Amino acid sequence: MPPKRRLCILVDAYLDLFTAKTAVGLLRHCPDEVVAVLSAPNAGKNLAEIVGVGAGVPIVASIEEALPQRPDHLVLGVALPGGQVPPAWRAMMLAALANGMDILNGLHQRLSTDEQLAAAAAAAGRRIIDVRTPPPLTEVGLMKATTTRAKRILTVGTDCNLGKRVTALEMVHALRGRGRQAEFVPTGQTGVMIAGWGIAIDAVVSDFVSGAVEQMVLTKGDAEFILVEGQGSILHPSFSGVTLSLIHGAMPDGMILCHAPLRRTLRHTDVTFPPLDQWVRLHESLMTPLHPSRVIGVALNTFGMDDAAARAAVANASKVTGLPATDVIRFGPLPLVEAVEGM
Amino acid sequence: MPPKRRLCILVDAYLDLFTAKTAVGLLRHCPDEVVAVLSAPNAGKNLAEIVGVGAGVPIVASIEEALPQRPDHLVLGVALPGGQVPPAWRAMMLAALANGMDILNGLHQRLSTDEQLAAAAAAAGRRIIDVRTPPPLTEVGLMKATTTRAKRILTVGTDCNLGKRVTALEMVHALRGRGRQAEFVPTGQTGVMIAGWGIAIDAVVSDFVSGAVEQMVLTKGDAEFILVEGQGSILHPSFSGVTLSLIHGAMPDGMILCHAPLRRTLRHTDVTFPPLDQWVRLHESLMTPLHPSRVIGVALNTFGMDDAAARAAVANASKVTGLPATDVIRFGPLPLVEAVEGM
Repeated sequence: MPPKRRLCILVDAYLDLFTAKTAVGLLRHCPDEVVAVLSAPNAGKNLAEIVGVGAGVPIVASIEEALPQRPDHLVLGVALPGGQVPPAWRAMMLAALANGMDILNGLHQRLSTDEQLAAAAAAAGRRIIDVRTPPPLTEVGLMKATTTRAKRILTVGTDCNLGKRVTALEMVHALRGRGRQAEFVPTGQTGVMIAGWGIAIDAVVSDFVSGAVEQMVLTKGDAEFILVEGQGSILHPSFSGVTLSLIHGAMPDGMILCHAPLRRTLRHTDVTFPPLDQWVRLHESLMTPLHPSRVIGVALNTFGMDDAAARAAVANASKVTGLPATDVIRFGPLPLVEAVEGM
Repeated sequence: MPPKRRLCILVDAYLDLFTAKTAVGLLRHCPDEVVAVLSAPNAGKNLAEIVGVGAGVPIVASIEEALPQRPDHLVLGVALPGGQVPPAWRAMMLAALANGMDILNGLHQRLSTDEQLAAAAAAAGRRIIDVRTPPPLTEVGLMKATTTRAKRILTVGTDCNLGKRVTALEMVHALRGRGRQAEFVPTGQTGVMIAGWGIAIDAVVSDFVSGAVEQMVLTKGDAEFILVEGQGSILHPSFSGVTLSLIHGAMPDGMILCHAPLRRTLRHTDVTFPPLDQWVRLHESLMTPLHPSRVIGVALNTFGMDDAAARAAVANASKVTGLPATDVIRFGPLPLVEAVEGM
């Protein structure tokens, strides 16, 4: 295990479940690594009351106020439209570098090549890590992932931003709790920040996405189970190509279908969702000719529903697909974990 | 119409149908623009006897030997594994620039930023165009292509390198011959060189491929028919993501399925081909939830078969799919053109 990091997460005014997706992901899955959240408009408030996770983590108003927590990383923990870093954050980043922190940047804008920041980092002996800047890649995917000893499980989804990363991470956690050797393969900026390694594949040149996934899967090939973080949706017109490259790079033995029952249309479109059993067949038909692969369970994101409605939604998903279903946050991942162990 | 170019195509020792794919594409679809092929090992030979196209175009041994043909472009017309330019070509490129030619480079290696070549181009007042270097792109696809007046037709395929570009170009040519307003949208380096515009989408960051296709389609939206050059295959593990981004960026009203009956396995894999009707259903199931789209015809590449076998293959493809079928090179594109006109 790598040494624990001490993360100060900068979200500024953007402390909500969608824009601060990276911050919320780190709070949920690296709770013992986050030492402070930097958000001047929310300083002193109760973090868990605002985003549902992060109980006990202080919200501070400045880098200086975070220093007693001895942070060693400043994380830019928001996904802003356009991917640019707000100019007002420069002073905070310089203060972080001067106070011995590395910078972990999940936005599209590259900071490691910014002259002023690079000079400040060099002077302080710190690093600026642009998570969205992939390493040089030249390999295309060629089904080499099928050679792993590990069973490969990929979370797929009916849309973006509905729990594919959370589902994979909760399953890894639960499998390990049962004494199984399970590894997480991150494929998006938040997953990479949580895992401390990996490639944000949406920033990779399209020809090399499946190859990048294949290489990542192979590095964990000796585990019992590999849980690969899904991206997008095979029917989302913006991201479907990333999704299919990921499927064919990971060559999953099993897929977990993630869905949010309250969502009415594919994000940013007017497209309504086909029934879940159609999604199951479509995913399987894109894999079967290459490698036998089945959807083995359904992970619902029932956020915003009351408990009775959530239970009904889970029962209905199970009935429509004939598969085990759950909400991994509300009801726990056990039905999916058992499905994986039964593979 | 843009003014005609006078192309000298450099293929060196790589004068075959696969490695010299770009050269052969230009010879087939821009026959009145190619003035010479530069291949010292084949100098003086009959081009049409070697690659089946290019009758009357001289094969020369050097830039100097090409000059009487007054070339204004040197085209790097091969697709080499790794995408690097052979070092021995540098002298030829410098000679071309010094003799008033632009350089059109279809390989992955970027030449416009090479110090020596850039200086030589500046001194000669010529340009180096890296076809595989996409423009800056920041838009994701959002089904805007559905707004075109033009019917959109996309060539799709069971594998890479079996005729998707040729089929689209032959259909444009035939439709225009029947007085219809048809436009070609190029999506690969050879298509871009032939059309003189466009984006090689396999070099685009994965998040922006569908957006790049969408923008290209919209520029031709006022035509009657848009024929979009397909790429890869939705089941090819190396390239499927590029293919699906292209499908969802172009939002085709109709698709033409391209297939090579003699091919036994997906290129570079051991995967055998599912039956054609399964390919038809799979392509339609990836479009129907977003926009009504049908496969409207089959284009076979019967290269290497005798005429009787080719006829039988076409009849069989038509029987299996219930769709019009042809080999656009051997038998002409009429059945597909009629299918498009009937949409």
